[in-house]
Amino acid sequence: MKHAMLLLQEAALKNGPLCVGLDTDPSYLPESVLKNFSSPAQAILAYNKEIIKRIASEKTACCCKIQIAYYEAMGIEGLKAYVETIRAVKEAGLIAISDIKRGDIADTAKAYARAHLGAGSDFETDIITVNPYMGFDTLKPFAEYGKPEMGAKGMFVLLRTSNPGMVDIEQQELKSGGRVLDKTGDELARLGSEFDSIYEGESCSPVGAVVGCTEESDARLLRDKYPNMFFLIPGYGAQGGAARIAATLLDKAGGTVNSSRGILCAWKKDALLQEKREKELLTLADIADSAARAARFSTEDLLNAKKELGL
Amino acid sequence: MKHAMLLLQEAALKNGPLCVGLDTDPSYLPESVLKNFSSPAQAILAYNKEIIKRIASEKTACCCKIQIAYYEAMGIEGLKAYVETIRAVKEAGLIAISDIKRGDIADTAKAYARAHLGAGSDFETDIITVNPYMGFDTLKPFAEYGKPEMGAKGMFVLLRTSNPGMVDIEQQELKSGGRVLDKTGDELARLGSEFDSIYEGESCSPVGAVVGCTEESDARLLRDKYPNMFFLIPGYGAQGGAARIAATLLDKAGGTVNSSRGILCAWKKDALLQEKREKELLTLADIADSAARAARFSTEDLLNAKKELGL
Repeated sequence: MKHAMLLLQEAALKNGPLCVGLDTDPSYLPESVLKNFSSPAQAILAYNKEIIKRIASEKTACCCKIQIAYYEAMGIEGLKAYVETIRAVKEAGLIAISDIKRGDIADTAKAYARAHLGAGSDFETDIITVNPYMGFDTLKPFAEYGKPEMGAKGMFVLLRTSNPGMVDIEQQELKSGGRVLDKTGDELARLGSEFDSIYEGESCSPVGAVVGCTEESDARLLRDKYPNMFFLIPGYGAQGGAARIAATLLDKAGGTVNSSRGILCAWKKDALLQEKREKELLTLADIADSAARAARFSTEDLLNAKKELGL
Repeated sequence: MKHAMLLLQEAALKNGPLCVGLDTDPSYLPESVLKNFSSPAQAILAYNKEIIKRIASEKTACCCKIQIAYYEAMGIEGLKAYVETIRAVKEAGLIAISDIKRGDIADTAKAYARAHLGAGSDFETDIITVNPYMGFDTLKPFAEYGKPEMGAKGMFVLLRTSNPGMVDIEQQELKSGGRVLDKTGDELARLGSEFDSIYEGESCSPVGAVVGCTEESDARLLRDKYPNMFFLIPGYGAQGGAARIAATLLDKAGGTVNSSRGILCAWKKDALLQEKREKELLTLADIADSAARAARFSTEDLLNAKKELGL
C-alpha cells in the first residue's frame, strides 16, 4: 500500500509540481457569474468543479489544496461546499490537500485527526496541514493516520511559512543553537523516520513540511537538510515567490508548489477576456478557462525553472 | 460599549471564575442516554443544553468554552450542534468562548475571523482562541474585531499551554533573551494596549492569553508581568492543575478557569448515581445534575483557593 504523500510525489512527477489552491472567496468571482447562483457558496462550488475538471483532463496539476477558512467563513453552507469540493478533487483522480492548520493537545488533536483523516468522515481528505506550536506531542495523533491500517494519510507540518511574520517565532534563534524552525524540522524528520520500517525503501514519508519559496538560501538549506521530506511550497505567484526558489525546493524528494489567487483570479487580468470583462459578460466557463490557462502557464514556468537548475 | 473580555471579567467576579468546557465527545455520555437520540450529535447537543440551563440558573459559571474539534469530528451534523450550542450559551446569558485555535496569514486569517467573529455568521461567538505560531501579523485580523464597530469581540492567544509538549517550542529559551512565550506575551500586551484609547480606563483589553495552571512559578511570573491581561486557564481538574495555581492566575486582571471532562464526565464517578450507573439506568437529567454538582464543587474549590491566597 502506498501512502498519500507517496502518491502525491508520483503525481507531481507525472503531471508536474503544481498544486491548485482552491482558497475560493466569493470576491474572486465576477458579479456576472455570482448572480446565477442561489448563494455565494454554490457559485464557489461550481467554479471549483469547473477548474478541477479542466486541470484534471489537461493534467496540469498533481493536487488541489483547499483552504478551509474561506468555506468556514460561509458557515454551514460553506462547509457543505467544502465537502463537495474535496469529493470532486478525489473523483477527478487528483490528491486533495486540506489546508486546515489545526493543532491541539491529546484527545482534542485526536478529534481533529478523526474529523479530517478518519475513514468515512464528512471532511475526509488525503493530506492535511498541521500547526506544531503546542509541541511535538500534538503531532502524533495526526501522524498515526499515516499507517496503512489508519488509511495511509499524510500531513504537512508548518515549517517555514511565506508571510512576513514568520520571523517572529519560526525564525527565532535558540539559545541551544539553531532556530525554532530547525528544531521543528528535525522532529519532523525523526517522526517521518518512524515510518521507515512500514513503507520500506520508499522515497518519502507521510510526514511532509510546509516550506515557502520566498527566500533562496533557506530553501537550499532546508532542501539539503531534509532530502527525504516532501514539501508543500506556498508563496509562488501572488505571494511573490520566484519559480527559481520553488524549483530549488523541488530537488531531492521534491514537493508541490501552490498557487491560489494566481489561478483563481487569472480572469481579472486575462487579455483574452478583456472585452467580456469590460462589458460584464464573463461566464463561469470563461473564468474557468482562464484559470486552466494560468495553471498550464504555471506548470510550464515551474518545469522550466526546474530544467534551468538541471533537475 | 463594553467588549466581550470585559463582560467576561465582570461575569467571573459575579458568578465565580469557572468556565465550563463543552468539549463534548459521544464517549462522555452513557449508552442509556445515547440510545434515546437519533445521532451522537443530537445527544451531545441535548446534554450541552441541560448543562447550560443548570449552570446559568445556579450561577456557578461565567462562561462556556466550546471545543470545536469534537464537533468537527462529527462532520456537518456535528457543526450544526456546535452552532446550536453557541446559541444556547448566549441565550442563557453566559459568555461563549469558541476554542478554535485558528491561525493563518493575511486574507486567510481574515476569513477565519469573519467565520467566527463576524456579525451574523453561523459560527459567531463572543471570544475565540488563536494560535500565534505563524507570526504576529497573523493576530491582527482577529484583534480587529475587538473594536466596537466590529462587534467588540475578544480573543485568547496561546501563551503557555498545559500539555507536556509546551517545552518543545513555547518554553524554548531564545538567544536574544527570554523564551518564545515571553516574546509572544510581550506582543500580546502591546497589541492589547492598542485598545487603551478606545476602551479608556477599562481593567482589561480584548486581547487575552491562554495560561495553563500546571506550574506555580510560571503562573506567578506571567500574572505579575501582564497585570492587565485576562487569562483563559486550562489544566484544572482532569489535566491535574491545582486550584492553588489557578488561583494565582486569578489575581490582578483575573481569568476564567476551564474544566471540561471534570464536569462532563462527573457522572462516571458520582457516588449519588452509583446504583443507576451499575444498572445502566442513567438519564440525561441524571448526568446533567451530576455535571451541575461538579460545577458547583469546582466553583467553591476555586473561590476557596482564591480566599486562601488572600485575593
